[in-house]
Amino acid sequence: LSLANIQELDDADVLAGYRSLFSLPPNTIYLDGNSLGAMPIGVTSRIKNTLEKEWSQDLILSWNTNNWIDLPLNVGEKIAPLIGASSGQVICTDTTSVNLFKLLATAMKLKPDRHEILSQIDNFPTDLYMAQGLAGMFPDNRLSVHTCTEDEISNTLSTDTLVLMLTHTNFRTGKIHDMKALTRLAHEKGALVIWDLSHSTGAMPIHLDACGVDMAVGCGYKYLNGGPGAPAFLYLTRSLQNKVSQPLSGWMGHEKPFDFNPLYDPGKGMRQYLCGTPSVLAMAGLDAALDIFATVDLQQIQSKSQQLGDLFISLVSQAHLDLNLISPTDGRLRGSQVSFTHPEGYSIMQALIAKGVIGDFREPDIMRFGFAPLYIRYADVEAAVTTMKNVIEEKAYFAPQYQMKNQVT
Amino acid sequence: LSLANIQELDDADVLAGYRSLFSLPPNTIYLDGNSLGAMPIGVTSRIKNTLEKEWSQDLILSWNTNNWIDLPLNVGEKIAPLIGASSGQVICTDTTSVNLFKLLATAMKLKPDRHEILSQIDNFPTDLYMAQGLAGMFPDNRLSVHTCTEDEISNTLSTDTLVLMLTHTNFRTGKIHDMKALTRLAHEKGALVIWDLSHSTGAMPIHLDACGVDMAVGCGYKYLNGGPGAPAFLYLTRSLQNKVSQPLSGWMGHEKPFDFNPLYDPGKGMRQYLCGTPSVLAMAGLDAALDIFATVDLQQIQSKSQQLGDLFISLVSQAHLDLNLISPTDGRLRGSQVSFTHPEGYSIMQALIAKGVIGDFREPDIMRFGFAPLYIRYADVEAAVTTMKNVIEEKAYFAPQYQMKNQVT
Repeated sequence: LSLANIQELDDADVLAGYRSLFSLPPNTIYLDGNSLGAMPIGVTSRIKNTLEKEWSQDLILSWNTNNWIDLPLNVGEKIAPLIGASSGQVICTDTTSVNLFKLLATAMKLKPDRHEILSQIDNFPTDLYMAQGLAGMFPDNRLSVHTCTEDEISNTLSTDTLVLMLTHTNFRTGKIHDMKALTRLAHEKGALVIWDLSHSTGAMPIHLDACGVDMAVGCGYKYLNGGPGAPAFLYLTRSLQNKVSQPLSGWMGHEKPFDFNPLYDPGKGMRQYLCGTPSVLAMAGLDAALDIFATVDLQQIQSKSQQLGDLFISLVSQAHLDLNLISPTDGRLRGSQVSFTHPEGYSIMQALIAKGVIGDFREPDIMRFGFAPLYIRYADVEAAVTTMKNVIEEKAYFAPQYQMKNQVT
Repeated sequence: LSLANIQELDDADVLAGYRSLFSLPPNTIYLDGNSLGAMPIGVTSRIKNTLEKEWSQDLILSWNTNNWIDLPLNVGEKIAPLIGASSGQVICTDTTSVNLFKLLATAMKLKPDRHEILSQIDNFPTDLYMAQGLAGMFPDNRLSVHTCTEDEISNTLSTDTLVLMLTHTNFRTGKIHDMKALTRLAHEKGALVIWDLSHSTGAMPIHLDACGVDMAVGCGYKYLNGGPGAPAFLYLTRSLQNKVSQPLSGWMGHEKPFDFNPLYDPGKGMRQYLCGTPSVLAMAGLDAALDIFATVDLQQIQSKSQQLGDLFISLVSQAHLDLNLISPTDGRLRGSQVSFTHPEGYSIMQALIAKGVIGDFREPDIMRFGFAPLYIRYADVEAAVTTMKNVIEEKAYFAPQYQMKNQVT
């Protein structure tokens, strides 16, 4: 591929116009939108209005007049089409971790005679931690957390499996699970499924309803660009909604929160998955960020993401950089990220960042590069590989400042 | 009291200068800072910087370079002196409801042979709901929630009481509990105590360490003015910190979150009370709001709050408005709010709001008026009573638009 060809790819990109909706720093190629999405320009005016009009001037009345009270449901409805959910099954609230806890506890109530949460050993750790936290509340044998490799899932599912809890796109490798097949497999054993969509939502079409998924959670601050620590979301299939309860039963989930009754009475539908008072500021930011998705075709996002990743893999291969690809080469099996390992991965990434190419590092030796198709250009991919080639060939990463581990993300 | 006297009170007010630090709407007397604090002007520039510099330009690197990662601990340290806590015992995270759940579950681990959460029947309902949610996770008899009146607490505490869970300032009446006496009473029975400080923090001095309190939670968006749904805080006394675990064990509470190990290892000290990724935007707002308290004397806040409330009660009494006071007349027993009941309380409050005097209504017949001493003037109190006198004497509240219940706050 020549630079001219790459320019042609950008010229032909049907999503190219979306880049102007984001505020991006100069002289930077941001390949970490899979960890923290870039800021949509529309967020600033929305937050300004939330602060200076809604909070400052309308004050407490905003819960009604500016409809703060329905933000969790309304933002949930905006997320629903992105994950293949029809109306009334998604709510935006709390964090992915807290929402997982609610759903795992819900599963326990639905299937009280089952005792095992099954997950993948390389699931995103907070999912495992939340399951461990829940299991730790009970005496031995009531609930255990079992982890296995991806290949072992099928044989490890049993009639004692309460729930199969998986992350759709692997945070290290970017490999995508077959949601339909694994959901069916779990259901054949009588188990429920919970999908963590954090590394998928906004990067590809997802089909929760069509795959018969029971429950799902996901993150607002990666490809949805809702801002650092943006509220998460929670999906519960309609057919279960009248059968469930969840233990984080805060007042916002009450059927009549403003009656202030001493006894909890769960709200109808998704509302009972609310807990305490949500941050209006944080949710307004996500709400504004989601406006971008109103006009976008998720299939086009996925196609571009595959092409960006394919180009990256191809250029790295041509450059002979001695990096070990751990992501699927087949773009259809890969989320919007590409990961390589290298013994000096940490230092290489620090050197790249210093030169304006921002990816991230995951222990022990993984360099991750995310390609958010709404704001990454083919030319960015080419420039990133050129920079990496320079860093590696010149061994720039051996500079002391790049060798000292201090990063937390 | 004449208008001239009231002007003298404002002229002599040592806190008068703080009002200019808030953005308040014109022609409005805001007496609901006990529900949602007014916006400190400093919040806007801080949020603007968080959006336009930290998120937009520094992106993922902000977790290090702008120290997002330590915000929960740093904001906790700012709250600590407001609640009488020495360093290392407070963290800012999640919601009051979620934090209560963490602490109640912690208490279960600390005292596994005790089975009862004791609380007050008119505690803020979310506290009761969270306790009910926790109890509902276990088979009968493992954990129950018992409620009694304030007078019955002493006789209801037993050797089976796991934890006495109380709200320091009653959300309906504004009555303040004797924290020291009740904490001692609970400890004499071998029970733990959890204080909900939501309606106290920022309105009066609180002495958690000196009262020997085990655990506490509180709200960021009332007298702390952190913004709608601002993050909450959690206190755990130092002597218990090495003995505890909590079940909402998300990745941010891990000892080494960025090692991404599959097994949870709780962070040291308060960090293990973090769960998922917190909203940086929401916490930055609270952080900026707390700057106001760096120079303020909580004793002066409490004194002014008592005087504002005393003035309000006195003027209402002089006006012969046929309102029934349900708050303590003794200012030392009263938080920064005054509540009256009236059969037409809902409609009167709506009429007041339409005339620019904003308080709130609580079922079945309670009108609440909050007096946040940092931005409420004595003249505001006088004007509010004059408006209320007009509304009631003219029976303006019978207008159809004030009779139709539609408010949610």
